[in-house]
Amino acid sequence: MIKNAKLRIIPLGGVDGIGMNITVFEYGDDIIVVDCGVSFPENDMLGVDLVIPDTSYLQKNSDKVRALILTHGHEDHIGAVPYFLKQINTSIYATKLTLGILEGKLTEHGLTKTASQIEVKPGQKIDIGAFSVEFIHVNHSMPDSVALCISTPVGKVFYTGDFKIDFTPIGCKPIDLGRIAELGNKGIKLLMCDSTNAERPGYTPSEKTIAASFDRIFYNLEKRVVIATFSSNVHRIQQIINASIKYNRRVAITGRSMLNVVKAASKLGYIDIPDGLIIDVAEMKRYNPNQLTLITTGSQGEPMSALYRMAFGEHPTISLGSSDLVILSASAIPGNEKLITKIVNELTKRGVEVIDDSNEVHVSGHACREELKIMHSLVKAEYFIPIHGEYKHLAKHASLAKELGMDPSRIFMPEAGKVFELSKRGLRVNGSVEAGQIMVDGYGVGDVGSVVLRDRKHLAEDGIIIVVATIDTENKELVSTPEIVSRGFVYVKESEALMDELEKSAANILTKYLNKGVTDLNTLKNKLKDELSAVIRSKIKRDPMILPIFTKTIL
Amino acid sequence: MIKNAKLRIIPLGGVDGIGMNITVFEYGDDIIVVDCGVSFPENDMLGVDLVIPDTSYLQKNSDKVRALILTHGHEDHIGAVPYFLKQINTSIYATKLTLGILEGKLTEHGLTKTASQIEVKPGQKIDIGAFSVEFIHVNHSMPDSVALCISTPVGKVFYTGDFKIDFTPIGCKPIDLGRIAELGNKGIKLLMCDSTNAERPGYTPSEKTIAASFDRIFYNLEKRVVIATFSSNVHRIQQIINASIKYNRRVAITGRSMLNVVKAASKLGYIDIPDGLIIDVAEMKRYNPNQLTLITTGSQGEPMSALYRMAFGEHPTISLGSSDLVILSASAIPGNEKLITKIVNELTKRGVEVIDDSNEVHVSGHACREELKIMHSLVKAEYFIPIHGEYKHLAKHASLAKELGMDPSRIFMPEAGKVFELSKRGLRVNGSVEAGQIMVDGYGVGDVGSVVLRDRKHLAEDGIIIVVATIDTENKELVSTPEIVSRGFVYVKESEALMDELEKSAANILTKYLNKGVTDLNTLKNKLKDELSAVIRSKIKRDPMILPIFTKTIL
Repeated sequence: MIKNAKLRIIPLGGVDGIGMNITVFEYGDDIIVVDCGVSFPENDMLGVDLVIPDTSYLQKNSDKVRALILTHGHEDHIGAVPYFLKQINTSIYATKLTLGILEGKLTEHGLTKTASQIEVKPGQKIDIGAFSVEFIHVNHSMPDSVALCISTPVGKVFYTGDFKIDFTPIGCKPIDLGRIAELGNKGIKLLMCDSTNAERPGYTPSEKTIAASFDRIFYNLEKRVVIATFSSNVHRIQQIINASIKYNRRVAITGRSMLNVVKAASKLGYIDIPDGLIIDVAEMKRYNPNQLTLITTGSQGEPMSALYRMAFGEHPTISLGSSDLVILSASAIPGNEKLITKIVNELTKRGVEVIDDSNEVHVSGHACREELKIMHSLVKAEYFIPIHGEYKHLAKHASLAKELGMDPSRIFMPEAGKVFELSKRGLRVNGSVEAGQIMVDGYGVGDVGSVVLRDRKHLAEDGIIIVVATIDTENKELVSTPEIVSRGFVYVKESEALMDELEKSAANILTKYLNKGVTDLNTLKNKLKDELSAVIRSKIKRDPMILPIFTKTIL
Repeated sequence: MIKNAKLRIIPLGGVDGIGMNITVFEYGDDIIVVDCGVSFPENDMLGVDLVIPDTSYLQKNSDKVRALILTHGHEDHIGAVPYFLKQINTSIYATKLTLGILEGKLTEHGLTKTASQIEVKPGQKIDIGAFSVEFIHVNHSMPDSVALCISTPVGKVFYTGDFKIDFTPIGCKPIDLGRIAELGNKGIKLLMCDSTNAERPGYTPSEKTIAASFDRIFYNLEKRVVIATFSSNVHRIQQIINASIKYNRRVAITGRSMLNVVKAASKLGYIDIPDGLIIDVAEMKRYNPNQLTLITTGSQGEPMSALYRMAFGEHPTISLGSSDLVILSASAIPGNEKLITKIVNELTKRGVEVIDDSNEVHVSGHACREELKIMHSLVKAEYFIPIHGEYKHLAKHASLAKELGMDPSRIFMPEAGKVFELSKRGLRVNGSVEAGQIMVDGYGVGDVGSVVLRDRKHLAEDGIIIVVATIDTENKELVSTPEIVSRGFVYVKESEALMDELEKSAANILTKYLNKGVTDLNTLKNKLKDELSAVIRSKIKRDPMILPIFTKTIL
């Protein structure tokens, strides 16, 4: 061991908002990176498709990066992997299903050839440079999720990833509490633990409780069942399959991501579907409603999803009505509430019965407070950093650790880019590295920034007015009346009088300054913007972007 | 009574989404209008300030309109009154506080002189044309709220307005169940009833339960209390005042609407504040934290509110820290969840303790299912139309009426503009009238429509590219390379190569068609738009608006 050796732990995301999870572990000349997820754009990130973490620090130290380790296959943990690999070529370690889901992303980005992928199993231990990483089975809303025990020369870090404690899970074993206890007994320096549900008291119900709900709903039901859930929730899909078998229903599947996941998960053995159960959507017409279950995407009200199109009568082949029961087997991701309500309203108008009570037909994939207490008590770490969640969740998780008797000086609040150093003497903060969000819009990565967003916001609110004028700077006069073209400002056909007035105002403003001897085009442009803005505000109380386009006369 | 007389009941809003409540009652040559509210713009209504109901039907029949009756002073019931009065001049009937709140709006729109306002008291009965309207005291999150019993020659309609049943309200009496029962016993033809909480089981807790929560929170507290609530929730403000008196705290108030409401409500006697209790914000520095309560706006995370500015350290005079406790005494209006989370995160980062559990420090102003059952059972109407709510709420309320034993053929689902006719023979639907939403942007009412919104959305997502070119149509050639100006597309300073390429592409496209003999400017514009779009999509997968501006050479 190096003298005065230190483990540097740097979260580059996932610690102030849901999504974009990525954490760097650095010891000497070795770096391993845990997860590399996306987050979804905030409301004010107009036109942005995705947000990925700023990995400048890793790019500068790319020669040290030994591995990218993935805890599970959700977008907020693996979505940015293709962008990462385009900058830093390293080996990827993950469980079978996680690699199976990653496959599609790598193909899409043309990266299947270059990326080296190493499949790991829960229980396995891998040496990577100065690190030894053990993969530990946990429960979550996606199969094959793991926690990590990262051993280093200065001690062990227990990194939970996303988890819940489920004693009766579907399609897998309960979380490996035995191994976690054993590791805890041997001594863990630092716990980094999922905080998503740190505000919620009690326990997250078992996935198995859903089976009882489905049983109650399917029993004696004459209607067709249409269930929307997250395509990644393979356990839930298995339960829908199970209920359908029990009640003699054939199962059709719609929605691109749902079809992809079911295909991948059954190929890899994570979902068990008897031959002949699945039928094509087109075959549904051969069956009665009470012989059918339809699994679909759209549980978040996504406007392009299959369920949205069915609700608005825009689906090419499936129409819903009074012989349908729609189950939203998911809870709303914050920000999607209104979209979901819109779908429920439309379905209800069509006479469709809707069950959207997330207490009955959905359970969370994250640990609530009592489960977090179990994790803390088993791991018995010397230090604690809450991760994964909004800042308010991290703060509640920190209080929980205090309630459990941890010394507040041993609890550290993370920030993206903050550098934690773990040495034999303990954990401390030592400065920070570059970190932040990078916006992806189309093929462009990072070319949309604050200036572009400010302009988009301005354009979105009041539109744009383009003033085209030809100016004879020699004779200090306008060659003709300026022409105004607008978009997103007013409905021009019904606002001709206003547009005429604005053209006259523009002419007056320009003539005034030309008469004063101003011939510099930039000065004229700025004067026109300021004074025409004032005219528009006084007339209609709006503030469109004003863009003067001046040409000098060709002499 | 006219032979074959009919009462026409036409909801023009408030029956498919929260807000914009307005209902027309028409008998012979007499029309009365109940409420006239706004709704807030949907996410896709970019730049829109307010949405008001389309009152074309009333404008066409303005000679019949005898009165506008207001049930209470919330925005979704009175916000569109000024716009209504600009089209139709009629008398306004409302209780004292409702008129007090309306006053500000009328002043703002310069309408105080023209509008005739008649103050009514709960228990009072007013004859208006063929109608006789009785005002009945109800509980709600605003004082002076009333239900209406509208008597007509064909029978009585009971219109609840917004209500809850509170046996221990603050600052007023419990809802007048006695009078409602009496009216029910005498015979009500039609019940129109608030559906906002029709999905929620049980009872809405009493406003008084908040007192116990405040007591628990204030007791022995060393911190300053900062409470955000709706400014219109006068009962809640009274409770904050009461708790502050009990625990020897002075009260400061911030936020424009909060200051206005407290002033109006105490002038009219709806709030009881001892002399010397209220201090100016600037005086707070003279007191210890445990001697202070600050009441503020911003419970919905509004970006211009006092609380938002305090959370982000942008408030000119108040800064919050570890000696502050912030209470969000409100629940999130759907769509505001993310904004509220943002505020809570920022406050938490500043070390502020935050209580945002709406189960503890807030109660709803609307009746839950058990309360709705009481209303139905007392009114015992022959027919029922659920009102006020999303369509899904109305549908749940209809099921509740069925559960109570009402014949489904006597339950009618409303739609904006649908005409219901009540005659001696019963209730039926008879066609519909013009109805819908009108968008208000600045001073413009209705000049923003689908074309403008489509353009704003396009601009918001990918910005705009303006291609300026001078074309010599005589000699069929470009006078110079086209110039491209963009806004909201890419950060131009870092995308010079792309912009150069696009200019070259534009030149090539135009030259190609000029060489083919195309000189019509519109044809050239369309060709340029199509082909340049394709180039941009292939290069960066974005779809900006393209606006060609061509000038011919001046010969």
